[in-house]
Amino acid sequence: MPSSARSQASSRIREFGLISALKQRYGTTNRRLVRGIGDDAAVIASSPNRHYLFTTDLLAEGIHFNCRTAAFADIGFRAAAANLSDIAAMGGTPEYLLVSLAIPRVATSRQVEHLYDGMMAACRAHRVRLIGGDTSASKGGWFVNIVLIGSAESGSILLRNGARVGDDLYVTGTLGDSRAGLQILERPRGATQARSLKAAHRRFLVRRHLRPTARVREGRWLAEACWATSAIDLSDGLSGDLPHLCAESRVGAVIERSALPISPACRQYAETYGQDAEALALAGGEDYELLFTVPARHRIRFQRASVQRRFRMTRVGRITPAREGLRMTLPDGRQRPLPSSGYEHFRPTR
Amino acid sequence: MPSSARSQASSRIREFGLISALKQRYGTTNRRLVRGIGDDAAVIASSPNRHYLFTTDLLAEGIHFNCRTAAFADIGFRAAAANLSDIAAMGGTPEYLLVSLAIPRVATSRQVEHLYDGMMAACRAHRVRLIGGDTSASKGGWFVNIVLIGSAESGSILLRNGARVGDDLYVTGTLGDSRAGLQILERPRGATQARSLKAAHRRFLVRRHLRPTARVREGRWLAEACWATSAIDLSDGLSGDLPHLCAESRVGAVIERSALPISPACRQYAETYGQDAEALALAGGEDYELLFTVPARHRIRFQRASVQRRFRMTRVGRITPAREGLRMTLPDGRQRPLPSSGYEHFRPTR
Repeated sequence: MPSSARSQASSRIREFGLISALKQRYGTTNRRLVRGIGDDAAVIASSPNRHYLFTTDLLAEGIHFNCRTAAFADIGFRAAAANLSDIAAMGGTPEYLLVSLAIPRVATSRQVEHLYDGMMAACRAHRVRLIGGDTSASKGGWFVNIVLIGSAESGSILLRNGARVGDDLYVTGTLGDSRAGLQILERPRGATQARSLKAAHRRFLVRRHLRPTARVREGRWLAEACWATSAIDLSDGLSGDLPHLCAESRVGAVIERSALPISPACRQYAETYGQDAEALALAGGEDYELLFTVPARHRIRFQRASVQRRFRMTRVGRITPAREGLRMTLPDGRQRPLPSSGYEHFRPTR
Repeated sequence: MPSSARSQASSRIREFGLISALKQRYGTTNRRLVRGIGDDAAVIASSPNRHYLFTTDLLAEGIHFNCRTAAFADIGFRAAAANLSDIAAMGGTPEYLLVSLAIPRVATSRQVEHLYDGMMAACRAHRVRLIGGDTSASKGGWFVNIVLIGSAESGSILLRNGARVGDDLYVTGTLGDSRAGLQILERPRGATQARSLKAAHRRFLVRRHLRPTARVREGRWLAEACWATSAIDLSDGLSGDLPHLCAESRVGAVIERSALPISPACRQYAETYGQDAEALALAGGEDYELLFTVPARHRIRFQRASVQRRFRMTRVGRITPAREGLRMTLPDGRQRPLPSSGYEHFRPTR
């Protein structure tokens, strides 16, 4: 979802202090409820060896998606991918889907079908099964609520709170592509063709926005081989999600700006439009890549193993003591504070 | 939810042929997925002895509830009770709750709190834990999506399809109270006081509507002691839900009109307003009582055991061959077809 909409929604939630209030009032854990309210996904012990993971997202038309600019299949795909990514970030295997839809009166059955088809297309590679849901009429546009149920070995669930000082920070894939793709979609038709951006690059970036890949295989490997000490998925951008991981782990971090993995397409896009590719990579949300930590002593073995698996995993920094905060090393060696949310620079006019 | 709104929403779904289309396209079961899309709740095998049950409801303001006439705590309570009742009808133990809320801009934090407090009040007796959810802004009123996760012994889950010819038909509690309570709420203030309806009866009926009791203990007992061969919860009224149970079990049924359990309050309400209490009991929805079948050969033992448990369970008819359809026996012994939905007679003007 666009960060502007996200922050709009989340400012409302902050205003209510809702999550912390609920956690305080109703948040409990016990032997079976391993992680409850307030975390990325809830974790329930189902057997001594296996845990169930539960994650849910509620998306509203006009806030999280726009039916005039996005096809229903793409809306469905992205909604499912965002939930798959939450399970991936915990090292889990996604298994079952529950979908509730509030459907406006003007909707067509084709739109409903395309929405489901998009969701199931995102799920197909992972053999996730649709097991239920509910539908309602809506007097206020489309609402899509997805619940994704996954499972993981009980000993190898990735959490946000396991990063330790000295750990290396990695990301999967490349960063900034989704934001570039969104900007392309939001520009008037023809505006991108007029410039020198290659058609293949344009298509790549748009696809990275509309059809993001949840890093499920990568997450499972990081968890099951016990490489990662913590993980989070990048829905709000590196500069938006790193603070969550660091806050939960009570550590700081330093990012090497020149190490950020940037695709040739994103690089060319930034050059064509006079933007800073690294700033896009830092602040652009919805990449749904994984950000994770690996102890530095495993660096050589880990990198060799990830290359063998053909995973693209790039070391982008390291974990520091909490008192050092969140910083960024520039190519000339100077350090400066990590921009807390660089997104504003790139907000397209709408 | 009012039957008019229900049928409005469900006609939309019928129009789409959504559930059957989805079931055809994506509905599968396997060794672990015991019951998938299209059933009351999905059933997943978590261990050899224990299954998880998943049920979900999406409620929309102006369709399923009205914030001007119902308090937020009551809206929350009823929404949770409806889901608890789904788990009860399968003989399960409700355990975990996920709640997604779309919150309009004009909402106050107090309204949000009351909604959660109502939900958790319904859950308290069952020790259900709130484990997560999501929130979003809404440009179109309130939406509440509840997912309730329960569990049951794998050998004793109650389904809709187990009724056999000759089984006795029972209901828990009394029928029609919720509809009477709704009608009282919808009448202009003072209109009910003016008549001779006792204040205690009025309060009882309103409470039965606003704070329905999900029959969780009863459902578990019916399932675990293996009394019941099938069960369903009464959200659309006896005449609305009996057809579902009979269709799934491929049987018919005959209801004894004079056997319908009617509370003194409902009886007095019907007399005061010139209504037919039995018709209210047949057609009034949202009682959230259980309708279930028990083999006739167990009748005496079953009735003795249920009385010992202090459960109110009333035999209201029996299962017949499918070709005999759904019928009703009148007090004079004549039979006539069961009204398919008697609700229209009672629809209050709004």
